[in-house]
Amino acid sequence: MESCVSTAMRRMKTPASPPGTAAISHGVLDDRLGYWTRRAQIGIFQDFFQAFRQTGIRPAQYSTLTIIETNPGLTQTQVADALGIKKANFVALIRELEDRDLVERRPDITDRRSYGLFLSKQGQKLMPILHAASGTHEQRLINVLGENRYRETLENLRLLAASLDSVAVDNPADSFII
Amino acid sequence: MESCVSTAMRRMKTPASPPGTAAISHGVLDDRLGYWTRRAQIGIFQDFFQAFRQTGIRPAQYSTLTIIETNPGLTQTQVADALGIKKANFVALIRELEDRDLVERRPDITDRRSYGLFLSKQGQKLMPILHAASGTHEQRLINVLGENRYRETLENLRLLAASLDSVAVDNPADSFII
Repeated sequence: MESCVSTAMRRMKTPASPPGTAAISHGVLDDRLGYWTRRAQIGIFQDFFQAFRQTGIRPAQYSTLTIIETNPGLTQTQVADALGIKKANFVALIRELEDRDLVERRPDITDRRSYGLFLSKQGQKLMPILHAASGTHEQRLINVLGENRYRETLENLRLLAASLDSVAVDNPADSFII
Repeated sequence: MESCVSTAMRRMKTPASPPGTAAISHGVLDDRLGYWTRRAQIGIFQDFFQAFRQTGIRPAQYSTLTIIETNPGLTQTQVADALGIKKANFVALIRELEDRDLVERRPDITDRRSYGLFLSKQGQKLMPILHAASGTHEQRLINVLGENRYRETLENLRLLAASLDSVAVDNPADSFII
């Protein structure tokens, strides 16, 4: 494990720079947590897309399906709040999952004006495949950091997310890289 | 510093959940680095937008201005590569900064077909204000994590970004949360 970290450390001396640009200095960005969180997030998502390629499932869809699987019957608002996704974006996301016949909305037995979200039969069959892809992806991240650094990073990012208001805003910057 | 971390830890028991949704389980997402990196990144960017509100400068613009300030005369391709921004997005980003009269393209003295990027006079005057806002923002992140956790997180995220291919792709998931 240590040699894996050392190898990555050596590569780190010119972070994410292609050959010929090694002399470019990041200036204060070297010490900006937001910059490196965004760069790491993009790298992690690239790896996610690779692991999930054959499923056509994106990160936000996987998270939504997992919340619905773990907590069947929640309302759209409850799932959107739990994930920190804006309601407007979430409605489109659920529609996609309904169109792929992975999620169903069923009326609440006690309040027929209210609809709960459930996995469809097809959704239930897909979940083990998605969790396996997610496990493969996660193991690659553990391999990059080593078990200890992986654990401390996970804990620290959860602490940051819980302490800062992490509900998404509609901001054009969000579609750019940092 | 410790009491600050403890306070945030207490809040962490129901991560980013509004009142009434505390019983919703994240399932395997609790142990998914990509999920928490994205949640933390969104929270950090919210804080950035607050610190930079009066400047109208977004994270990607601040990073670009900082690279140009630190390395005057680079080509657009060199700056885009250093930041991991796709060329197509970067062209639009530079145009915005030119329209705000913060950045200038000047022909290279030795090769007049090639243009280098420089801060304008106005851009040079703005930078100390932006770096001050960035410092305020960063100090809030240090306060959340405490100095030690902040340092280890920064280091680990740099390691992840350097080890994974973190050049942005045009993926619709990127405009969603998670």
